[in-house]
Amino acid sequence: MSDVKKTMTMTQKILAYHAGLKYVKPGQLIIANLDLVLGNDVTTPVAVKAFNNMNVSDVFDKDKIAIVPDHFTPNKDIKSAEHCKFVREFACEKQITNYFEIGEMGIEHALIPEKGLAVPGDVIIGADSHTCTYGALGVFSTGVGSTDMAVGMATGKAWFKVPEAIKFVLKGKLSRWVSGKDVILHIIGLIGVDGALYKSMEFTGEGVKELSMDDRFTMANMAIEAGAKNGIFPVDEKTLEYMKGRSKRELKVFEADEKAKYSEVYEIDLSLIKPTVAFPHIPENTKTIDEVGEIKIHQVVIGSCTNGRISDLRIAASILKNKKVKKGIRLIIFPGTQNIYLQAIEEGLVKVFIEAGAVFSTPTCGPCLGGHMGILAAGERAVATTNRNFVGRMGHPESEVYLASPAIAAASAILGRIASPEEVVL
Amino acid sequence: MSDVKKTMTMTQKILAYHAGLKYVKPGQLIIANLDLVLGNDVTTPVAVKAFNNMNVSDVFDKDKIAIVPDHFTPNKDIKSAEHCKFVREFACEKQITNYFEIGEMGIEHALIPEKGLAVPGDVIIGADSHTCTYGALGVFSTGVGSTDMAVGMATGKAWFKVPEAIKFVLKGKLSRWVSGKDVILHIIGLIGVDGALYKSMEFTGEGVKELSMDDRFTMANMAIEAGAKNGIFPVDEKTLEYMKGRSKRELKVFEADEKAKYSEVYEIDLSLIKPTVAFPHIPENTKTIDEVGEIKIHQVVIGSCTNGRISDLRIAASILKNKKVKKGIRLIIFPGTQNIYLQAIEEGLVKVFIEAGAVFSTPTCGPCLGGHMGILAAGERAVATTNRNFVGRMGHPESEVYLASPAIAAASAILGRIASPEEVVL
Repeated sequence: MSDVKKTMTMTQKILAYHAGLKYVKPGQLIIANLDLVLGNDVTTPVAVKAFNNMNVSDVFDKDKIAIVPDHFTPNKDIKSAEHCKFVREFACEKQITNYFEIGEMGIEHALIPEKGLAVPGDVIIGADSHTCTYGALGVFSTGVGSTDMAVGMATGKAWFKVPEAIKFVLKGKLSRWVSGKDVILHIIGLIGVDGALYKSMEFTGEGVKELSMDDRFTMANMAIEAGAKNGIFPVDEKTLEYMKGRSKRELKVFEADEKAKYSEVYEIDLSLIKPTVAFPHIPENTKTIDEVGEIKIHQVVIGSCTNGRISDLRIAASILKNKKVKKGIRLIIFPGTQNIYLQAIEEGLVKVFIEAGAVFSTPTCGPCLGGHMGILAAGERAVATTNRNFVGRMGHPESEVYLASPAIAAASAILGRIASPEEVVL
Repeated sequence: MSDVKKTMTMTQKILAYHAGLKYVKPGQLIIANLDLVLGNDVTTPVAVKAFNNMNVSDVFDKDKIAIVPDHFTPNKDIKSAEHCKFVREFACEKQITNYFEIGEMGIEHALIPEKGLAVPGDVIIGADSHTCTYGALGVFSTGVGSTDMAVGMATGKAWFKVPEAIKFVLKGKLSRWVSGKDVILHIIGLIGVDGALYKSMEFTGEGVKELSMDDRFTMANMAIEAGAKNGIFPVDEKTLEYMKGRSKRELKVFEADEKAKYSEVYEIDLSLIKPTVAFPHIPENTKTIDEVGEIKIHQVVIGSCTNGRISDLRIAASILKNKKVKKGIRLIIFPGTQNIYLQAIEEGLVKVFIEAGAVFSTPTCGPCLGGHMGILAAGERAVATTNRNFVGRMGHPESEVYLASPAIAAASAILGRIASPEEVVL
């Protein structure tokens, strides 16, 4: 094979480096060194049981494991309390540095970047499908099963089949009220929920610099909803600015080769994207806000690992300020982390939410996965800034979830139907 | 019977007035007009089913019914979502004025007084045992079953067996770190959980004026934990000050006859009461803080209809300021209502809690009744400002709950064992 053909995508370069190889190609099986192994209260108990069956004396590196009990916490019931206790005892016994108790934590995928535990160039696995979020920072990160988490905790390694990639060349600038959430929903609508199956979604182009870090987190987070192995952004000035002071570890910047091969290339003009809503019961079922029609709703959820960051809360507050949630509608807002909670208090956002008649709660995955804190009854409809709208995702199998941005969610809470922010803000 | 003997306690006078009688005596069965009929998301569905079987066309007065979905809200699961939906639809159909959706509400017994729905001299029934809380305002209020709630909603009346009363003559002034919670725990320790069975606990004496309204709410709230039909305080300047601007309805001040008969009279010197903790598994199992010994804990809960008011949060914040919750301990704080939440933000209390590493959540009964948002696993111990510490009350049957004031709870969260605030605050 000639050297000319040995080009790699960004993801492939990161994987090659972590496998100690000069070159990897799509489909190749490799074993890569891990910078972080992550689990939550749902997946870690299973991983710990598998770990305990492995006859290893200790974890590979107590500083490179993160455990975040965020799904059914504060403990929903006795079962979740027992799971959390089991995980807490393991974390204590193994002296896991990055075990985060409720009160000092947040939703894992909001927390890990905030704490500087995901550093550009890293390879991270997490026993949670939305682990792909850290791709926003130029990290290769992906969701794995609990047994892979167990092996990762024991050995610091994981095997991967090197993915091929789809290139998304972004250009232009987002219009008002359009955010990363609309972009990723638009893309999922375009390519379908299996459109990127076991592939990398590599976001590139001039348009990237127009996207805030929070937009990028949202987009990378939902790469899995297009079936992708990972979603990834180049490291630019915004990334470096975000990383400032967060980690003492060395950043590694990997860039796709100019002639890297992609299975597909899409050009996305950000300026043409409209606010977008994914209708039940699949994220690819998208409509732009002008196509939505009259959809009455019962509940609105703003938060989750997808859209619970400070910019999401700022947008929601800008729409809810001096307005009221429509009578009979429940608006439930969750900050992604305790730090975001503090910042939201300091910026007066929580005051706006409570005055508007919203619930503002402690960080938890809660209703996103039908866990707790906002479950739907039969026949109820929710607009949610979360990431999945499968049948029964937020509660009863006969309930419906419409995925949207915080802007649409906030406007919908005021009007009691799926609405554009333009209908409530001049 | 001569007129001399026809004396009445405060409770008896309120009941006589509402029954349209000049005189009632203990044991007499009466039918009284109701000023408010209250239910929550646990009890109202049962009440609505009973109501629907009564063949009445409408509720007696849509302004005199309050429905507060506070126990398993934001909806814990599909079952609670279905219950809330059922109640919401009833409230909507009957145009119940005081139906409070999550986001505009709070814990029922914190909310009802705050909204001016309990007015001195009222008779209130609620399908919740802690309805006795409003006795702090000189109201006769008591918990009833769901079918009594249904009859109340249909007819505006309820039957009562007139209770006899125990008189508690309070004198002196509380020491630092001693609150209404310590007083009522002390009293329950003194007379036992059946010490006031089907009796009124009437609090009187010079000491009353030293108690804040929040202290009185806490004490009246826990009258049921001594088995009482109700607990009640005289209406004084603090009551009138509290009521200012809350209700347009007429206040009625009832006073016990000077020669009213009581089954027992206790003199309580407030200045002698020490911080008090009720050990598992019964509220009468009290020890003063100096008798507690080394009790390690796992979780602390500050909140509930007993101690989730602004003064409770202020005390907790004064102890937690610039301190940290001990590693491995969960501190979960719930404001009683959305208004208290707002006030706590404005006073900087929520900032203190989050900086200390506490969870601060939306108002809910949550962990108090083992509902959700902080359930205990086997072998776990909690210090809680809640009202009951029965076996399994906060989760697993092998968990333990220690009842205490917000001051003790906050200090315990810092030290990881049941502790006096004097150990952490100079």
